[in-house]
Amino acid sequence: MGMTLTEKILAAAAGKEKVTPGEIVSVKVDVAMMDDILGPRIEIAERLEELGAKIWDPEKVVVISDHYTPPATIRQADIVKFTREWARSCGIRRYHEYEGACHQILAEKGYIRPGMIAVGTDSHTCMGGAVGAFATGIGSTDMLGVLVTGEIWLKVPASIKVFWVGKLGPGVMAKDIILKTCGIIGHAGATYRAVEFVGPAIKELPMDERWCIANMAVEMGAKNGIIEADAITDAFLEALGLDKGKHFSSDPDAVYVREISLDASQLEPQVACPPAVDKVCPVNEVAGEKINQAYVGSCTGGRINDLMMVARILRGRKVAKDTRLLVSPASREVYQRALKAGFLETIADAGGVILAPTCGACVGAHSGLLAGGERCISSTNRNFVGRMGSPQAEIYLASPATVAASALEGRIADPRPYLEG
Amino acid sequence: MGMTLTEKILAAAAGKEKVTPGEIVSVKVDVAMMDDILGPRIEIAERLEELGAKIWDPEKVVVISDHYTPPATIRQADIVKFTREWARSCGIRRYHEYEGACHQILAEKGYIRPGMIAVGTDSHTCMGGAVGAFATGIGSTDMLGVLVTGEIWLKVPASIKVFWVGKLGPGVMAKDIILKTCGIIGHAGATYRAVEFVGPAIKELPMDERWCIANMAVEMGAKNGIIEADAITDAFLEALGLDKGKHFSSDPDAVYVREISLDASQLEPQVACPPAVDKVCPVNEVAGEKINQAYVGSCTGGRINDLMMVARILRGRKVAKDTRLLVSPASREVYQRALKAGFLETIADAGGVILAPTCGACVGAHSGLLAGGERCISSTNRNFVGRMGSPQAEIYLASPATVAASALEGRIADPRPYLEG
Repeated sequence: MGMTLTEKILAAAAGKEKVTPGEIVSVKVDVAMMDDILGPRIEIAERLEELGAKIWDPEKVVVISDHYTPPATIRQADIVKFTREWARSCGIRRYHEYEGACHQILAEKGYIRPGMIAVGTDSHTCMGGAVGAFATGIGSTDMLGVLVTGEIWLKVPASIKVFWVGKLGPGVMAKDIILKTCGIIGHAGATYRAVEFVGPAIKELPMDERWCIANMAVEMGAKNGIIEADAITDAFLEALGLDKGKHFSSDPDAVYVREISLDASQLEPQVACPPAVDKVCPVNEVAGEKINQAYVGSCTGGRINDLMMVARILRGRKVAKDTRLLVSPASREVYQRALKAGFLETIADAGGVILAPTCGACVGAHSGLLAGGERCISSTNRNFVGRMGSPQAEIYLASPATVAASALEGRIADPRPYLEG
Repeated sequence: MGMTLTEKILAAAAGKEKVTPGEIVSVKVDVAMMDDILGPRIEIAERLEELGAKIWDPEKVVVISDHYTPPATIRQADIVKFTREWARSCGIRRYHEYEGACHQILAEKGYIRPGMIAVGTDSHTCMGGAVGAFATGIGSTDMLGVLVTGEIWLKVPASIKVFWVGKLGPGVMAKDIILKTCGIIGHAGATYRAVEFVGPAIKELPMDERWCIANMAVEMGAKNGIIEADAITDAFLEALGLDKGKHFSSDPDAVYVREISLDASQLEPQVACPPAVDKVCPVNEVAGEKINQAYVGSCTGGRINDLMMVARILRGRKVAKDTRLLVSPASREVYQRALKAGFLETIADAGGVILAPTCGACVGAHSGLLAGGERCISSTNRNFVGRMGSPQAEIYLASPATVAASALEGRIADPRPYLEG
């Protein structure tokens, strides 16, 4: 009986020939990431000192202040300062701040590579699985253990296979793939599972789109999301001057607890309706609903391909009256690329407001919160009650294409007509 | 005995031939501006309703949500929503949000023109005096009266004349002129005075630089700051397709309670040291002081000429390690012009973080607050304890040129060496 991609990575990291779902293993960690909001300040810095312990390998640790930059309160500013100073005092050279979402930085710096074990104090750490790594979010007590020992114990997750055939049509994006998947599996349908995305539709996606998919595995409760590394992954890493890492792939006779097969060519733009990420329907079922805010950004929906799509739809058009479009590029690098490519100019000309790269509004921390009674369509990853501000606000999740089209109409709208001709 | 520029405007608006300092007059208001933070929600909307009164002329009212956009808290979001909906319910067409600082919008839309009486619920409304208008900040009780009657009573202020001869050297800006003036007059030295800026150094300044000077008149306690309208003012308004308004000028025998004469050609870059705007010294007296943050923005220091100067200094250079440079263009229009001119690209390439146009950090509301123990150099207009975040932070005020040079060095620095050759 063969192993899945996830099982193979865990086996290698545990120094074992084989692992089986449900088995407890201790694995070596290749990269440990902490952010500002749930990072060193939460039972980590103080406990490390209490233990008199040192970090096992500061070169494998990344610290990123992203949720609270730019700070909106004194408390946020103090937390960023604490995070910065703690990283420095520990000799951690990979410290980033004011540069955007931690997962995007891990991705674009190549800190996570194929075959690695990556853990982070943020639930969307699972995004790293897009390069064929095992990446998962952990709590601070677990992170403390990782920092001291360089290892973590895990229960090997059983895997779910999500197979996508076909080819996405124009104006349909990876975000629609993952929203559709969330709708089918449900917000708890993959609890503690590895969700492996396979098939020709996935293989065709550029890295930017793959990150978007792996990012939202946790929205189904998954331990990790994963996509096998391939030539596209290699090319991405090569462009960064990095090696290919270790490629693993699922055996033909690997065991999955569930298998789903879907056709990308039949997929329409999807919308997750408030207040749940799995309350998903095709855009046309909710088209026409009035919105106050359209938001493009975050680790799941603010990459360069997202901004390119937004610019394509907005070019020569104007955001609807009484509607605001806020755009926060996922990182400093994305910001600069979008600036040089003219995307930011197109977005600004259309009436969009360009924010600094930040987790800000996505997590309800600052930079574009919603008032009571307001409705937002957003390319982010969560639409829980109160996620982006008032508990009396409503959030629809959709692809950047759908968000851009909706900004133009002031109502939820299908992006496809804007991409014709 | 003649009248000053300020007296002449007030006399005309009061329908009198002559007014004298100390006299109480009732004047017709040409433009009444409310912002979000101290606008309709503060004893205005509710009281108007209680009175059963209507706004005398909605076409003369401007409402701008700038302090709380993009909102950092639910409360801020709710206030912006309230402000927007109130403006709409009153038939106020000049409502702006997410477009930057109210005073910059009043300026660049040409809402304030020569000879006008402008009042606003923000202390820096005095900025409008740069076009030869009488512009002053008022409280909400006064604003309620204005909204109902279209008039306001005022005590005619005595005038102070600040005469600047000479020509500014390279790297010395209007901000240095006003900081030097504040240092001489003191933070309360012009209490309830009109401060009139005259002389060849002032006459040479483009509008952008003139706004900067009038903006900070209130930092000396002044009722208003004022600069006579001239050909530069006319050209500015003509570019907006607007008429010249009514030009007034001080009589040769007008009476001033104080006259100061200064030489711009001798002026070095100035810095206002914490915690007072009048604790002013030449930059070289504090050069070398370590900073954590450099901030360019606000209604006094984020205009296109400011960003051009910042870009000139940053071009091909990098912001110092462990220092952050935050840049918030003063308005959406400034943002777009700076984007198209390449200034934002230069700033981003140097490592600066571009924020949306907002009052944010200048007023300690969001978007870049300081932590305890941090030190900031800023092109904004106030350095009181706690103004930009923690009361344990320190703020130095300086020109955008000085802020940019300081960002490069990570320490307070003279910008002039960066402009040589």
